Amino acid sequence: MRVTLKDCADILKNHQSFLILTHASPDGDTLGSAFALKRALQKIGKPSFVLCNDEIPQKYSFLWEGITNDDIDFEAVISVDVADRKLLGEKINQEYGDKIVLAIDHHLSHRDFAENTYLCDKASNAENIYSLINEMDIPIDAGIATCIYCGMATDTGCFLFSSTTPETHKIAAALMEKGADFVLVNRKMFETKTASYLKLEQMALSTIELHFGGKCAVMQITQDMFRESKSNDGECDGIASLPRKIEGVLIGITIKEKSNGNFKVSVRTVEPYDAAAICANFGGGGHNRAAGCEFECSLEEAKSELLKFIGEKVI
Amino acid sequence: MRVTLKDCADILKNHQSFLILTHASPDGDTLGSAFALKRALQKIGKPSFVLCNDEIPQKYSFLWEGITNDDIDFEAVISVDVADRKLLGEKINQEYGDKIVLAIDHHLSHRDFAENTYLCDKASNAENIYSLINEMDIPIDAGIATCIYCGMATDTGCFLFSSTTPETHKIAAALMEKGADFVLVNRKMFETKTASYLKLEQMALSTIELHFGGKCAVMQITQDMFRESKSNDGECDGIASLPRKIEGVLIGITIKEKSNGNFKVSVRTVEPYDAAAICANFGGGGHNRAAGCEFECSLEEAKSELLKFIGEKVI
Repeated sequence: MRVTLKDCADILKNHQSFLILTHASPDGDTLGSAFALKRALQKIGKPSFVLCNDEIPQKYSFLWEGITNDDIDFEAVISVDVADRKLLGEKINQEYGDKIVLAIDHHLSHRDFAENTYLCDKASNAENIYSLINEMDIPIDAGIATCIYCGMATDTGCFLFSSTTPETHKIAAALMEKGADFVLVNRKMFETKTASYLKLEQMALSTIELHFGGKCAVMQITQDMFRESKSNDGECDGIASLPRKIEGVLIGITIKEKSNGNFKVSVRTVEPYDAAAICANFGGGGHNRAAGCEFECSLEEAKSELLKFIGEKVI
Repeated sequence: MRVTLKDCADILKNHQSFLILTHASPDGDTLGSAFALKRALQKIGKPSFVLCNDEIPQKYSFLWEGITNDDIDFEAVISVDVADRKLLGEKINQEYGDKIVLAIDHHLSHRDFAENTYLCDKASNAENIYSLINEMDIPIDAGIATCIYCGMATDTGCFLFSSTTPETHKIAAALMEKGADFVLVNRKMFETKTASYLKLEQMALSTIELHFGGKCAVMQITQDMFRESKSNDGECDGIASLPRKIEGVLIGITIKEKSNGNFKVSVRTVEPYDAAAICANFGGGGHNRAAGCEFECSLEEAKSELLKFIGEKVI
C-alpha cells in the first residue's frame, strides 16, 4: 500500500524498535538515509539496527561516528532507498524481503514489496528522510545533517546532475546551517582518489569504444583490471559516469565484471535518451539519466546485445 | 577607495555606458560575472562591452547567447573578478589598468588598482554581481541567472569546495527558480571532456610525484603534452585539482609550461595548509585552498624552489 509522509511518521510512532535495511552494494544515499533515520530514532529513544547485505566501505565511517548499532529484537523492518526487494541482496532478501513494514524510496521504478511504501520522486532518498524527520518534529543535529547531506550529495553528484532541484539546494543550505560537515563528506566522496583507483581509471579509459558516430561510448572493467591496479569495487562509485563525459556522447555504458563472473551494466544518458528504459529491456531499472542491469553471459555477448538494442530501438 | 554595494549601484547609475574587463585566461566566474552584469545593464538601457585579453573558449558561448557586444565609446571601465591589475593580461593592463573606475572582486588577496573597489569575500565573484543586481532592483531573467550560476558553479567546483556557503546554495536555488539553465552549465563545465583532454589528463597523471611522505603531490604539464594530446589550455580548467585528490595528499601542485616558456604553478591544499601563503612567497596569490604563481626559469628549478620552500617553511 502506498502511504503518505504522515502515515510513515505514524508507523515509526507505533513501533518501538527497528531494523533498517539498505540496498546491497551500498552507496552514500542508502547509507546516509539509514544512519540519518537511526540517529533521529535514537533522539526519541527508539533503538534500531542498520543492516546491509554487503560490507560497508570504511570511507563511510563518519556516518556512524559517535553512535552504535543497537543489538535488539526489533519490532519492525524498514527499507531505505531500495527500489526492488532483489536489490536488498540475496541473503537479506531471503531473510527479510517479505517482512518489510515500511519502504521509503525515491525511485520511480520502485516495485512494491513492502506492507507500506512511501515513494516520492526526489533527487535523493535522503531528502525523503529529511522530510520525514521534520514531519516527526525531531530536531536535526549536526550528525543527522551530515548523513542527509551525504545522501543528497551522492545521488546528485554534488549538485551536478539534472535531477538536482531548487529544493535540493535549499535543503543543503539548511543542513549546512545545522552543522553538516559538508567539507568532510565532499572530500571523502568526491575529492579522494586512491592511487589504485587512479590506476584502474586509466586502464578503464583505455578500453573506451565509440559507437553510432560517437553518440554511444562503451567502457569495460574486468576482474583482471581490479587485480592489476589493486583497486576494488568499493572505490568505483563514480567511474560509471566517465564514458558519458566524452564530448558528443549521449549514451555512456560501463560493463563491469563481477567477482561471480556476471556483468553489471551501468547506463548514463543525456536527454532525450532514457537510461531506465534501456536497462528495463534487460530486466534492470533506475532513473531516466542513470540506470543499471545485469548480464549472465560473456562480456562480448553483453556488449553485443546492448549495442544491438540501442542501435535498433534507441538511437 | 573601498566602497559599499550601494556605492557600486550609484556608480553604475551615474554612468551611461561601460567597458567590462575580465581577467586573462578567463574562467567561468570572471566571464559569468561580466556577462551577467552586461545583461543587467542592458535591461536598464545602458550599453556595455565585455573585453578579455585572451580568446574566450567557445564552450562559454551560452553566456552571450542572444546578446551582442555594444560597439561604443564607453564612459566608465569596470573590472570583475580581477585581484590584481597584472591579471588583466599585458595588453589590457597597459591600455586600461590605470583607468578602472570600479573593481568588483571577491579575492581577499586583492591589490587595489581601481578608483573604487567593492571587495566581498564570497565563494565566487558572481555572488557579488547577484547582490549588486538585486541592489539595483533589476529583475533577474533566465539569461542573467545562467551567467551567475556559471560563475558560482565554476568557483565552487559545483558546490564541492570548502568555500561553498549556505548562502551559495540559497542563491543557486533562487537562480534555478528564475530559469538558470543549470543542466547546460553543469554539462559544459563539468561533464564534458574532449578526447584530447582525456589524453592530456592521462599523460599528466603519469608524471605525478609524491613528496614529504605522500603529503605533497607534484604534477607536470608541458607544451609537448599539449601538442601530443592535441589538447590546449582552454580545456584544462579543472586539471589543477587532480594532484590534491590523491588519498593522503594535503598540498597538490600543478606546474604547467606556458607557450612563452614560463611556468604557471597552481597550488591546491587541504586545511591547515594555506595555498595563498605558499604562492605569495613566489609573487602570486589567491585563496586559502587554491592559489597560483608564476616562474621564469626551468621546470626543474621551479619544482625545486617550491619543494624547498614547502619542506622548510610549510610542512
